[in-house]
Amino acid sequence: MRGVTCLAISGGVGGAKLALGLATYLEPPELAIAANIGDDFEHLGLTICPDIDTLTYTLSGLSNEQTGWGRAGETATFMRALEGLGGETWFHLGDGDLALHVARSQRLRAGETLSGITADICQKLGIKARILPASDDEVRTIVQTTTGPLALQHYFVRDQCAPTVTGFHYEGADTARVNGEILEILSAPSLRAVIICPSNPYISIDPILAMPELKQALKECPAPVIAVSPIVGGEALKGPTAKMMQELGATVSAETVAGRYRDLIDGFILDPTDTSLEPSIRAMDTQTLLTPSVMRSLDDKVKLAQAAFEFAVSLS
Amino acid sequence: MRGVTCLAISGGVGGAKLALGLATYLEPPELAIAANIGDDFEHLGLTICPDIDTLTYTLSGLSNEQTGWGRAGETATFMRALEGLGGETWFHLGDGDLALHVARSQRLRAGETLSGITADICQKLGIKARILPASDDEVRTIVQTTTGPLALQHYFVRDQCAPTVTGFHYEGADTARVNGEILEILSAPSLRAVIICPSNPYISIDPILAMPELKQALKECPAPVIAVSPIVGGEALKGPTAKMMQELGATVSAETVAGRYRDLIDGFILDPTDTSLEPSIRAMDTQTLLTPSVMRSLDDKVKLAQAAFEFAVSLS
Repeated sequence: MRGVTCLAISGGVGGAKLALGLATYLEPPELAIAANIGDDFEHLGLTICPDIDTLTYTLSGLSNEQTGWGRAGETATFMRALEGLGGETWFHLGDGDLALHVARSQRLRAGETLSGITADICQKLGIKARILPASDDEVRTIVQTTTGPLALQHYFVRDQCAPTVTGFHYEGADTARVNGEILEILSAPSLRAVIICPSNPYISIDPILAMPELKQALKECPAPVIAVSPIVGGEALKGPTAKMMQELGATVSAETVAGRYRDLIDGFILDPTDTSLEPSIRAMDTQTLLTPSVMRSLDDKVKLAQAAFEFAVSLS
Repeated sequence: MRGVTCLAISGGVGGAKLALGLATYLEPPELAIAANIGDDFEHLGLTICPDIDTLTYTLSGLSNEQTGWGRAGETATFMRALEGLGGETWFHLGDGDLALHVARSQRLRAGETLSGITADICQKLGIKARILPASDDEVRTIVQTTTGPLALQHYFVRDQCAPTVTGFHYEGADTARVNGEILEILSAPSLRAVIICPSNPYISIDPILAMPELKQALKECPAPVIAVSPIVGGEALKGPTAKMMQELGATVSAETVAGRYRDLIDGFILDPTDTSLEPSIRAMDTQTLLTPSVMRSLDDKVKLAQAAFEFAVSLS
């Protein structure tokens, strides 16, 4: 797309933090975000897109800062009433959040595309960055565990990441058509940086990269591609990344993340805590930048965003 | 159904008051209620059944006594969020109320019947009377107006009953299969009374009577059939009944209501305010009972329920 200088590739909470930093640092129309759809699922007859929604709420200022997901100022009347009716209550849906799921589900059933609906909702909520679902087709992350395969949200929310992970499958990724806007952006001369956000590589980034056409476009992209480590000091900044790595027999470290992306990235951002890993990552033929990667305040987010963007640009 | 001694035929608010009286007066499993489905509609991708829901909330003690519809203790976070997304807000859905619509819509899409879902919800909410949707097929009330035909909720809620009514059409009534339980009850020897509740004849009762099989079953029913006037002293107890009558060129009076039901009913209940109408109603070959018909307290409801049931039984 004309004017987009930065494409972020992001999952939910962790990625959304850096996306907010980028949206604040860059002129907003310069930022596009390829969003994970592997978490999306059907629940109570509604299509729920947790990562798109976290990005939407974060970038519109509606997000709940405490939880990192959902909306601020929520009420829970729906869930209480649903419980009274004997409904499924393992996935919490706030009353305000529900508006997004109901409106989107209705529009999807009426034949609109997920990308079209997302663009419209972003516009309604005053978001100037473009949130681009990785595909308008379905890609569904299946978590393979020692007790059998689980739909992502069953693993993640219902079973609270308790089962032991043995692998992942991205159902539909082989045949899903990549969002055309993402492909356009990746080949546009205005693009100066592609940033893989500090999201969970297995369940946030890989479902996107599992689409062969998208992975190929990333490889061919003239702009530098960098990644920001979601593992700092051997611990995951958020969620089950470390636990998954361990169960898969990998070392819980930023190096493992860099290794997964090595055929795609030109640069990798490490927290200064992980200085000792720099030589082995450089040995992967990947440039490195050491910069604080734990984002607490908005200032942290903007600083990391600026550092990441400038680092990427410096690699071109 | 074995054990049902009273079948009420009811719409929403007005009918639900008498239904609550009957459920309190009778041993609960003795009461069944044939509920209007002509108000049902699809909104935001959800199937909404206003009359069934009003009956459900009223009989479970969850209803909002102030409005007469919806649940007590509601929040409105969903509607506010929906407005922010540019969604349709003309039909108010409380956060708790939404649970019923979402759960039911999901189950309908999964192939369950409206009657099965309604029975299950009643059971979950501790309702012992049987709420029986008039049909599991669709019947949709269309209000014919001087500005064209309108779906019932568009006329009723969106346009606030402003258009001038010229007639009604009950789409699907000709072919809808009547709820089998209602037909069973109407021919069961245990049945002692059929009570047409003080609901709007045009939009609450006629959509039910418009099903030829149901009307025939009512005519053949061995138990007495009575009706309670929704018009008292020339005014509607609730809603647009009087306005509709006027626009259709009829006198706004209990006599007009009795006239509409004359080929079905054995008896008609009038408020003492309308004593002067008694002779002309009796002239329709219909027995009459004068008893207070305005239900404010629960006591009013139970008293009218008792009077109605005993009056009907006395006609057998």
